[in-house]
Amino acid sequence: MLELPDLTPGQYSSIYNALSMVIAVNGAVVLYLLFSRSRVAPRFRPALLVSALVCAISVYHYVRITGNFEAAFTLDEGGYVPSGEPFNAAYRYIDWLITVPLLLVELVAVLALTKSRSRSLLTKLIGAAVAMIVLGFPGEIAAAGETSQRLVWGTLSTLPFLYLLYVLFVELGRAMGDQPDGVKTKLRNLRLLLVGTWGVYPIAFLFPVFDAAPNATLFVLRDVGYSVADMLAKGLFGVLIAGVAILKTELEDPQFDTRSVAGADTGARATSAGAGAAG
Amino acid sequence: MLELPDLTPGQYSSIYNALSMVIAVNGAVVLYLLFSRSRVAPRFRPALLVSALVCAISVYHYVRITGNFEAAFTLDEGGYVPSGEPFNAAYRYIDWLITVPLLLVELVAVLALTKSRSRSLLTKLIGAAVAMIVLGFPGEIAAAGETSQRLVWGTLSTLPFLYLLYVLFVELGRAMGDQPDGVKTKLRNLRLLLVGTWGVYPIAFLFPVFDAAPNATLFVLRDVGYSVADMLAKGLFGVLIAGVAILKTELEDPQFDTRSVAGADTGARATSAGAGAAG
Repeated sequence: MLELPDLTPGQYSSIYNALSMVIAVNGAVVLYLLFSRSRVAPRFRPALLVSALVCAISVYHYVRITGNFEAAFTLDEGGYVPSGEPFNAAYRYIDWLITVPLLLVELVAVLALTKSRSRSLLTKLIGAAVAMIVLGFPGEIAAAGETSQRLVWGTLSTLPFLYLLYVLFVELGRAMGDQPDGVKTKLRNLRLLLVGTWGVYPIAFLFPVFDAAPNATLFVLRDVGYSVADMLAKGLFGVLIAGVAILKTELEDPQFDTRSVAGADTGARATSAGAGAAG
Repeated sequence: MLELPDLTPGQYSSIYNALSMVIAVNGAVVLYLLFSRSRVAPRFRPALLVSALVCAISVYHYVRITGNFEAAFTLDEGGYVPSGEPFNAAYRYIDWLITVPLLLVELVAVLALTKSRSRSLLTKLIGAAVAMIVLGFPGEIAAAGETSQRLVWGTLSTLPFLYLLYVLFVELGRAMGDQPDGVKTKLRNLRLLLVGTWGVYPIAFLFPVFDAAPNATLFVLRDVGYSVADMLAKGLFGVLIAGVAILKTELEDPQFDTRSVAGADTGARATSAGAGAAG
C-alpha cells in the first residue's frame, strides 16, 4: 500500500478536478454513443454499445475513486493530510480488468469481420490484456520501499503487453488491409491512441521507483495522468469509434442516412426494397 | 448472527473490491441487455428483459451491501475492527428470493416453448427454488456456535435443491431436445453455469461449521465467493442468454438482421410479407 503524502490545497484540487472531469467527459460520451447508434448501419451498433459500456463503467469507478479520495485526506490548518483511510488502488485495476478487454472488443467489432476471424483475434488480444493487468497489480500495491518487487511485476506485465502490440500491429494490421483507404487511416489513428495512452500507465506505475518517500508532486502527476489517459482511451476512443462506424456506413451503405434517427428506418427500407427489386 | 472477525486492510479491501466489481459488471450487463433487445427476434425479448431485471436487482442489493459493510467495520490503528453494527446477511437472501426464480424464467423463456409447457416447468422450478432459499435462511443467521442448527436447515434446503436439479436435467433436458444442435450446446453450458455457481452457496454456507470462531480468512472467502458467483450466475448468465437468443434468431429467422435496431422492424415486415405470400 502506498503511503500518502501531504497535499497543498492546489495539489488536492488538481487531483479532485481531474477525477471529476473524467466523470463529466466519459458520462457525456455514454449518452452520445447510446443516442448515435441509429446513425450507423446495424452491423456497427454493437461496437458503439460496447464503447458506451466502457465509458459507463469508468464513470462508476471514478465516482468511487472521488469518494475514496475525499475520505483519504482531511483538511488540517489549511493543508490536506492523510486521514488514515487507505487510498484504494484497486478501483483502477478492476476498471481496467473489465474495460480493456471491452475496448479491444470495440476495435475488432468496428471492423465487422467474419465471426471466426473476430473470435481468434479477440482470444489473443483479451488473453494478453488480462495477463498484463493481473501481473501489474502486485507491483502497484507493493510498499513504496519495495522497488525490486515493483520492477519484477512491472517486467512480467510487460511481456503480455509486447505480445498484445504484436497482435495489434501485425495480425490486426492484416485484417485492416481489406478496409477502404479513409477508414484505414482512422483505424490506424485509433490503434495509436489506444497504445499511446497505455504508455501513461507504466510511467505512472514507475513513479514510486523514482522516489520511494511519499512525494506530493509525483502523486499528483500519477493521478492526473491516469485520469487524462482514461478520458483519451475511453471517451475520445469511443467518439472516434463512432466516427469510423459513421464513415464506413456512408461508404458501404450510401442509401443509409447517417444524420438521422428516422434514417435508420429509411435505410433499412431502402435496403429491403433493393433486395426485393433484385429478387 | 455471525460474529465478525478483525480484518487487515488487505482483507477489507479484497471484500470491498469484490462487492464493488459486482456493481460495475452487473450494471454494465443491464445496459447491454436493454440495448440489445432489438438484435433478437421479438419472441426472445422477454428473456433479455428479465435478465436485465435480475442484474438491476443485484446492483441495488450490492449498493446496500457495500454501505452495510462500510458501516460494520471501523478503522483502528491501521486495521479494521467490527464497529458493532451487524452485517446484514438478509440482503443476499432477499436478492436470491427475487432473482433465482427470475433466472429460471429466463432459462425457460429463451427456449420459446408453448405456453402450457413453459408454465408447468416454471411452477416446479420456482416452487423448488423458493423452498430452497427460504429453508436456507434460518441456518445462515444461526449463531456461529449453533452448528447443528446450521446443518439441519442446510439439509432441509438441499431437498428442494435436488428436486430442482431433477427438473433442470431431466424434464428441461427433454424440452431442450427439440432445439437446434448449436443452441443445445449453448443451453447445456448455461444450465451448467447456473448449477455450478449455485455450488458456491452451500460451500460458503458451511464455512462457520468448519470454524466456529470469527475467522477472517473464511469471512473473506465467503464474501468474495458469493460476489464472484453473483457475477457469473447473473452477469455472465445474462450475456450468454443474449448469445443464445441471437444465435436462435439467426438460425430460425435468417432474414432478421440480428445486428440492427431497424432490422427488428424490417425483419418483422419481411416475415409478415413472407407469411402473406405463403397464405
